[in-house]
Amino acid sequence: MSAVESTSGTAGGGDGNPRERVATARRQELLQAALQYADCCREVISQTRSHGVEVDAKPDLSLVTNADLAAERAFRQSVEQDFPDMGIIGEEFGASRPEAAYQWVIDPVDGTADFARELPTWGCIIGVFFEGEPIVGVIDHPDLGLRMHAAHGLGAYCNNERMILQDTVSSRSALTGRVGVPSRSSFTRCSKDGHVFDALVRAHPDFRTLRTCLTHTYAATGQLDAAVEWDANIWDLAATRILIEEAGGRYLCVREREQQGAGMLYSAVFGRPALVDRIAAMLGAHI
Amino acid sequence: MSAVESTSGTAGGGDGNPRERVATARRQELLQAALQYADCCREVISQTRSHGVEVDAKPDLSLVTNADLAAERAFRQSVEQDFPDMGIIGEEFGASRPEAAYQWVIDPVDGTADFARELPTWGCIIGVFFEGEPIVGVIDHPDLGLRMHAAHGLGAYCNNERMILQDTVSSRSALTGRVGVPSRSSFTRCSKDGHVFDALVRAHPDFRTLRTCLTHTYAATGQLDAAVEWDANIWDLAATRILIEEAGGRYLCVREREQQGAGMLYSAVFGRPALVDRIAAMLGAHI
Repeated sequence: MSAVESTSGTAGGGDGNPRERVATARRQELLQAALQYADCCREVISQTRSHGVEVDAKPDLSLVTNADLAAERAFRQSVEQDFPDMGIIGEEFGASRPEAAYQWVIDPVDGTADFARELPTWGCIIGVFFEGEPIVGVIDHPDLGLRMHAAHGLGAYCNNERMILQDTVSSRSALTGRVGVPSRSSFTRCSKDGHVFDALVRAHPDFRTLRTCLTHTYAATGQLDAAVEWDANIWDLAATRILIEEAGGRYLCVREREQQGAGMLYSAVFGRPALVDRIAAMLGAHI
Repeated sequence: MSAVESTSGTAGGGDGNPRERVATARRQELLQAALQYADCCREVISQTRSHGVEVDAKPDLSLVTNADLAAERAFRQSVEQDFPDMGIIGEEFGASRPEAAYQWVIDPVDGTADFARELPTWGCIIGVFFEGEPIVGVIDHPDLGLRMHAAHGLGAYCNNERMILQDTVSSRSALTGRVGVPSRSSFTRCSKDGHVFDALVRAHPDFRTLRTCLTHTYAATGQLDAAVEWDANIWDLAATRILIEEAGGRYLCVREREQQGAGMLYSAVFGRPALVDRIAAMLGAHI
C-alpha cells in the first residue's frame, strides 16, 4: 500500500495492516523522537534566521533557503545517529536506504516562499512510515506557536490538546463547507488540470488558499471543513494522513502518478468524512 | 471624491486635497485616538472571548458575534465622548451624523467567520475620513500580534516600524507577482462577476485567498505584491488606502456602485504601483 494512500478512513486497522506489528512502545518512541527533531528544526531555523536568510531558486524555480538546508541536515544527522537502520526521504537531500521498512520523511520548511517573505504560514513537516503506512506525524508552525502531532492508535493533538473531528460541517454561512484549495498553479504546474481547480472553486466558492501545510493543520482541527492537495510530493503530505485519521477524519488519495523529473505525485482530499467523500466524488468526475 | 477612491497614488496632495486643510496636530490627535480605540476593541474582544463567543447569522447569512457587537458599541461610545461632532459608520450599527465632515469608520471584527473558528486571520479595522478623504487608518490583528497604522503625511507603520513599499516584485518564483485574491463567492454574491475571478487566477495562478483584511496588511508590508477586493463595503476598506499610500504603494478603485440592500460596493486593487496598474488594466477589460 502506498505511503499516502488511505485506509478505510478510521484510525484502527485489522491484522492485515502492517502498522499493527509496530508495538505501542515503539510508536511512542518514534513519536518522542519526531517531536524532539521538530524542536531541533525550530532551533536551527531560528538560528539561521538570526544570521540572515539566503534565498535561492531551485531548477524547478521553487525556492530553497539556507534554513531549509540547515534544518534538513540537522534532522538527517539525528536520525542517522538514533535510528541508523531506518531510511530518510527529505525534500532537499533525497532518499537514503530506500529499502528500509521504516522511513523518516521531512519537509523542513513547507511554504519556503512564505517563509522567505516572513509570512507566518510555513510549517515543518515530519512523518514516519512503516512498510508504507504512516505511524507518526508532526506539523510544526513556529511563527504561529502551533504544533500538531499524532501516532497510530495514540490520538492526534494540537498543542498537546486532543483533537476530535466531528463529522458535521459547522459553518452556517457556507452550506457547502469551508474548503482549503491549492492555488491554480498547483493544477497546471505538472498537469493540465486547470479545469479541476475551476470545478472545485465553483462547488466551494467560499474557499481559502494558503498554499502551505497550514491548510492541513486547519483541516485536522476542523477550522477548515476539508482541504485538497494537488500533485504534491510525499514530504508535503508526510504527516497529514496520520493527523487527520487519528483526529477522526478521512483522508482519501484521489490520484497517484509518477511524473518524470518530479517523482511520485499525490492528489488527496482530507477532513470531515462526509464532505471528503463528496469532494472526492466530484474530483473523480473531473480527472 | 469618494471615501475609497484613489488619489494619484502618492501620499502627498495639492491645495485641492481636503486633507491638506487638516492640521498635522489634528491628524496626530486622531491617529492617537484611533490607536487607543484599537486597544479598547482588543480588550473588549478578549473579554468577550473569555466569557464565550456567541455566533449568529445576519439576514444576508454573514456572521456576527457578541464580540463584534461589544467592540463596536465600546468604539462608538468613545468617539461620541471624545469627538461628539464627528460621524460614525460601523458594520454592525450603521451611520450616525452622516453630514459631518469627519467620519469614523469601523469594522470591529473583519473576518467574523474566521474569528468564530478561532483562525488568527481576522482583524479590527478603524479609519477616519475628512470630506471623504482618508486621513487615518489602523488594522489590528490581535491573534498575530500585528498592528498597522498610518496617517496622512505621517507615514505607515507595522508594529511601529516604518513601512516603505518598493515598486519591484520580489518573488523569484512567480514572475507575475504574488497576489491576494478574494474567494470566488465575493464575485458572485452581489454581482455576476465569476468571469473576473476566473481571469484573475489565470493571470496570477500563484495567488493567496485569506478572505480577511490580513490580505490588506500583507499588501501594505509587501509580503504580498498586490491584492484585490471585490464588492466590499466601506468599512472593509476603511484603513486600506491610507495604509497603502503612506507606505508608498498605489490604491486604485476600479468600480464603485450602489446595490439595493447592500449600499455602496467598492472594488479595488492595491499594492506595488506597477503591478497594481497592470491588474487594474486587466480587471478593466473584464468589467
